[in-house]
Amino acid sequence: MSAATSRKETLQLGFVGLGRMGLNMVRRMQQAGIDCVVFDTNIDARKEAASYGSTIAESIQDLAGKLEGSRAVWLMLPTAVVDAVLDQLVPLLSAGDIVIDGGNSHYVEDLRRAEALSKHRIMYVDVGVSGGVWGCERGYCQMIGGPEQAYKRLEPAFVALAPGVGAAPRSEGRTGDPSPAENGYLYCGPSGAGHFVKMIHNGIEYGLMTAYAEGLNVLKGANAGKHKRSADAETSPLEHPERYQYDFPISEITELWRRGSVIGSWLLDLTATELNRDPSLKDYTGRVSDSGEGRWTAQAAIDEGVPVPVLTAALFGRFTSQGNELYANKVMSAMRHAFGGHHEVTTDNKD
Amino acid sequence: MSAATSRKETLQLGFVGLGRMGLNMVRRMQQAGIDCVVFDTNIDARKEAASYGSTIAESIQDLAGKLEGSRAVWLMLPTAVVDAVLDQLVPLLSAGDIVIDGGNSHYVEDLRRAEALSKHRIMYVDVGVSGGVWGCERGYCQMIGGPEQAYKRLEPAFVALAPGVGAAPRSEGRTGDPSPAENGYLYCGPSGAGHFVKMIHNGIEYGLMTAYAEGLNVLKGANAGKHKRSADAETSPLEHPERYQYDFPISEITELWRRGSVIGSWLLDLTATELNRDPSLKDYTGRVSDSGEGRWTAQAAIDEGVPVPVLTAALFGRFTSQGNELYANKVMSAMRHAFGGHHEVTTDNKD
Amino acid sequence: MSAATSRKETLQLGFVGLGRMGLNMVRRMQQAGIDCVVFDTNIDARKEAASYGSTIAESIQDLAGKLEGSRAVWLMLPTAVVDAVLDQLVPLLSAGDIVIDGGNSHYVEDLRRAEALSKHRIMYVDVGVSGGVWGCERGYCQMIGGPEQAYKRLEPAFVALAPGVGAAPRSEGRTGDPSPAENGYLYCGPSGAGHFVKMIHNGIEYGLMTAYAEGLNVLKGANAGKHKRSADAETSPLEHPERYQYDFPISEITELWRRGSVIGSWLLDLTATELNRDPSLKDYTGRVSDSGEGRWTAQAAIDEGVPVPVLTAALFGRFTSQGNELYANKVMSAMRHAFGGHHEVTTDNKD
Amino acid sequence: MSAATSRKETLQLGFVGLGRMGLNMVRRMQQAGIDCVVFDTNIDARKEAASYGSTIAESIQDLAGKLEGSRAVWLMLPTAVVDAVLDQLVPLLSAGDIVIDGGNSHYVEDLRRAEALSKHRIMYVDVGVSGGVWGCERGYCQMIGGPEQAYKRLEPAFVALAPGVGAAPRSEGRTGDPSPAENGYLYCGPSGAGHFVKMIHNGIEYGLMTAYAEGLNVLKGANAGKHKRSADAETSPLEHPERYQYDFPISEITELWRRGSVIGSWLLDLTATELNRDPSLKDYTGRVSDSGEGRWTAQAAIDEGVPVPVLTAALFGRFTSQGNELYANKVMSAMRHAFGGHHEVTTDNKD
Repeated sequence: MSAATSRKETLQLGFVGLGRMGLNMVRRMQQAGIDCVVFDTNIDARKEAASYGSTIAESIQDLAGKLEGSRAVWLMLPTAVVDAVLDQLVPLLSAGDIVIDGGNSHYVEDLRRAEALSKHRIMYVDVGVSGGVWGCERGYCQMIGGPEQAYKRLEPAFVALAPGVGAAPRSEGRTGDPSPAENGYLYCGPSGAGHFVKMIHNGIEYGLMTAYAEGLNVLKGANAGKHKRSADAETSPLEHPERYQYDFPISEITELWRRGSVIGSWLLDLTATELNRDPSLKDYTGRVSDSGEGRWTAQAAIDEGVPVPVLTAALFGRFTSQGNELYANKVMSAMRHAFGGHHEVTTDNKD
Repeated sequence: MSAATSRKETLQLGFVGLGRMGLNMVRRMQQAGIDCVVFDTNIDARKEAASYGSTIAESIQDLAGKLEGSRAVWLMLPTAVVDAVLDQLVPLLSAGDIVIDGGNSHYVEDLRRAEALSKHRIMYVDVGVSGGVWGCERGYCQMIGGPEQAYKRLEPAFVALAPGVGAAPRSEGRTGDPSPAENGYLYCGPSGAGHFVKMIHNGIEYGLMTAYAEGLNVLKGANAGKHKRSADAETSPLEHPERYQYDFPISEITELWRRGSVIGSWLLDLTATELNRDPSLKDYTGRVSDSGEGRWTAQAAIDEGVPVPVLTAALFGRFTSQGNELYANKVMSAMRHAFGGHHEVTTDNKD
Repeated sequence: MSAATSRKETLQLGFVGLGRMGLNMVRRMQQAGIDCVVFDTNIDARKEAASYGSTIAESIQDLAGKLEGSRAVWLMLPTAVVDAVLDQLVPLLSAGDIVIDGGNSHYVEDLRRAEALSKHRIMYVDVGVSGGVWGCERGYCQMIGGPEQAYKRLEPAFVALAPGVGAAPRSEGRTGDPSPAENGYLYCGPSGAGHFVKMIHNGIEYGLMTAYAEGLNVLKGANAGKHKRSADAETSPLEHPERYQYDFPISEITELWRRGSVIGSWLLDLTATELNRDPSLKDYTGRVSDSGEGRWTAQAAIDEGVPVPVLTAALFGRFTSQGNELYANKVMSAMRHAFGGHHEVTTDNKD
Repeated sequence: MSAATSRKETLQLGFVGLGRMGLNMVRRMQQAGIDCVVFDTNIDARKEAASYGSTIAESIQDLAGKLEGSRAVWLMLPTAVVDAVLDQLVPLLSAGDIVIDGGNSHYVEDLRRAEALSKHRIMYVDVGVSGGVWGCERGYCQMIGGPEQAYKRLEPAFVALAPGVGAAPRSEGRTGDPSPAENGYLYCGPSGAGHFVKMIHNGIEYGLMTAYAEGLNVLKGANAGKHKRSADAETSPLEHPERYQYDFPISEITELWRRGSVIGSWLLDLTATELNRDPSLKDYTGRVSDSGEGRWTAQAAIDEGVPVPVLTAALFGRFTSQGNELYANKVMSAMRHAFGGHHEVTTDNKD
């Protein structure tokens, strides 16, 4: 545990949304001495939070009532629910209070909400939180946007949630007191800045994941010369089957790359673990969901005129895994039939 | 019929390979007065050729014997068969004879074969032929490589096969006698040049097809706001469903674009016809084969250091339509499970 | 001239915006007997329109006054100006009047404007117009959205502007009276539908252009084996220089492909003309602008979850031609320096 | 220092090629007690190796003579030089000896060389080595191909060079004696397997680098709303400038992501260090070299029919940074001029 989280803080925080991630965050804050007043419609989740020392609220109204002095309420909710909860919560708050959205909102929503709340002199803080199911143990990387004054008041919470400087070796050239970024949280700028940076974080994540996945797929296909390529008269045969005779131990290779290679990463660590657990990946069908940030990253890039071919290739791979390229492919089959009399081959290349 | 094809020529040509395309080519040459001595293992195809006025050979040997003077033999064969036929044919030929490969060989094969045949002082000519099943009617676009002397001798055949200048309006600035290119055939350079240019032609074709197909797919998806996006908690909802309420008449739109628009093309003509015939495209599953040239184009570009993101995106779309992205997607699902506890969603986005 | 445009029509139309395209459209409508009352701030353009037989208005107000009965005003303006002109125009109109936006508006703007005008019971029609500088001669391909009743009233204008069925051979299977699409105009659906279809048209156009351009670039690079690849110790040498010894006649090749090939198109026609005029393309620096529709197409695809790798690769190529990839490349150079001690090579691959 | 490298080994090894990387490898092996007999044409490098305890050879011949018993010679040379050195070395070796190529050869070269050497009953081992300039300190990740018997004999050298299991936490589910992969070296399969896996490693590396670089570029462009987009009449204005008003502290953000985020990696560590050193990256022009493996990865994928859109997008970005997209862009400018009368805009989007 870092020095940061061993301090006892006096901050009190309302916390709405005790899903998997919310509960872990509350636990980590309570351990650092931050008193959380929590609410969720799920009663079991409330009980769990109580076991960490949190104060339970029976409703949003109850929560607002149990907070003392200048209030701060952290929302950890599905994007689609945030506005409805704000409708309930805002009338219960006063000038100088703070609302934090720690979920996965589009930063454009932050701009709208921040402006709406500013009319009530309530400060809106957007925090992009990375860490997934591992956050309670590793700490949460936090990207923060909104009024700087609010950021300052909440800093003890960010410190409590952050991994702390010990989570990675200090970068060459960085000395003295660790900066907030080195502790794992950062004030990124005005409203929306936190979720903007988190959006880009996820956009990059898509690209990284696909880079590994494509590379491993080429390793897997390296035995192509052992199979007869499809009987399909249209498909030209593999020119050099003798070059594709490898059955690679992919699980061991991902483990290997974790040490000393240029492509070591946390995503690679996870991949190695998963492939060690089941090299066949038989539990997966290969349908890859996307959750918004990858799309928003691409759209922001397009607005800015910034080329992002890798990030969009990754995004479109997910769309395709969801079956959304089907019509385009049918159109192409129809064209091929029209100009060449080609009939679709029903077996795939690997038979 | 163009002026070119109405001339009577005295060229005599051996022709091996009477598939769909070969037969049509022989027919077009016979109509132009070129005497073809033909062979194919398929007896019905030989009879068909005889009905066009061709002389039938019973074997490669017979064919070689029936040709007079300096001989020229045009091969119109599957790539995988060319070398075997050359093994039979070459010993029957003499110095000064010509072999033409009009199939879809990789130009690298041409380089090898041209060198081997040059040792016998036999000239090897590579011809990339475009036109598909429509060629007999429209004429064949021919891209020619090899010794220029051989090209000159064969020019009457190229003229007979070519569409002729009348097939398209002359380009602004082109006057006087139409050039060979304007007639639809072109000497592109030394050995391999013909198939190299045809390879790029097909590489471009892949890109064009995918551009149309993707655009139509976006038109088709323009009613996305009418459906509830998947119940999937991970997927963010469509922010503006009111913007995606269109059910576009895609068949009519492709017809529309044929007149006066910037994107009119022969591929669009074919697409409009197919979509008019069956707007549902229900006969197609969307598995799109690839036949070599698209791959070779990408590999040549990479050798040259030339970026071809569009052409490779088109190629990879075909690979994916064949199911070859599956392992990569499973790897990504495994990663998502590992860092986020995400389980795969089994329904697709459209439910 | 098609049958359609030889009819004399009685429709009267206001027309605002006499740029290059607007003037040509007015001319074509006047030739078909449609009486245009025109306005532009440019007095020379007004005079030009007068020479076609149009009635000149001195102001928007004057134009509104000179129209009789149920009025229809066609705007042919830069996107950024449309709202300002509507602010002037709408108060001068009455219930039942029609405004047409024939420019390049984003269809999302159409949705907003149509709703705003509907409060005044004014009908708003969006028309995507393709044809560029060639439209006066070839006719304009028109994609139309808005209230169907307005479309019906305006049909004579669409007919006058359209190329007519004679502009392309009828598709196989299409008989009887030509449909509107076959004449070159189409009612695509409710408000925004016209500009949506035009947006996709342009998105496809980007993809097509890049497919040709990449292919020609590979042809151009086919002499790579003649040059020594950079002295750069990091760059691996070309493995088979003997395969890249071609100096292709690119201008003739584009001319060649116009006849009988699978990739014939209007864009190819133009490319052949340009390359014939100047094969060196020395007048161009290679900075390719983008004008909105390509971006919007990508964004719509992303909203819909439809993969468009080719269309975005084309778009990003334009962004890159504008210099917007620079920072990303600097970041990569910095990474390479950090892990490999690599210094940037200052000469390019071709030296 | 890991347990592995603290053992004293009795292996003796010839080592040819004392560049930056070779010297560091020799040093690490000497520290582990492996006796190296070294040669390089650079006399200073030899002296440096002598200071580590290596035996100096004056020539390849001398080196071969100074090795005792069954010999093993490790080559650490530029790809282009390997064959020339083998021509000298092989005649000096005997049946049962081993040659190791630890450079960046294409695995296809390995297949050829292994076969050639097997005629002399010399075993050829290919080792892909990752670690760059950091390897001496971190250890080298080694991917090994060739005869398994040779691998076994050389294992002490691989152990000495590898980072050892302590370089990363053990993966969940891995217990007992660490496997070779966990120590950082792995026998991947028969000849070529080592360089094949290294090739894919580098292909992935390109993808990862570009994913980060693109994401950071979008962050950098997030102030787009502060600038007036180009006066260019063709370019549509930014629809929502208020959404792009951020000046992000990119250097701090990369530092931030190192702790607790999903995208932590060694490449990110290096990026954070470089950006901390000089956030302006003013020393770089953005020309990004490529060194073979990225190209070979793409070509292998294409041979296999495996889609790699992300890896090729990364590769093509490098080609473009080298200026090789220029002709394609000129072609597009020419097309735009032809159909739309568009003139190139000479200023970029950011002015």
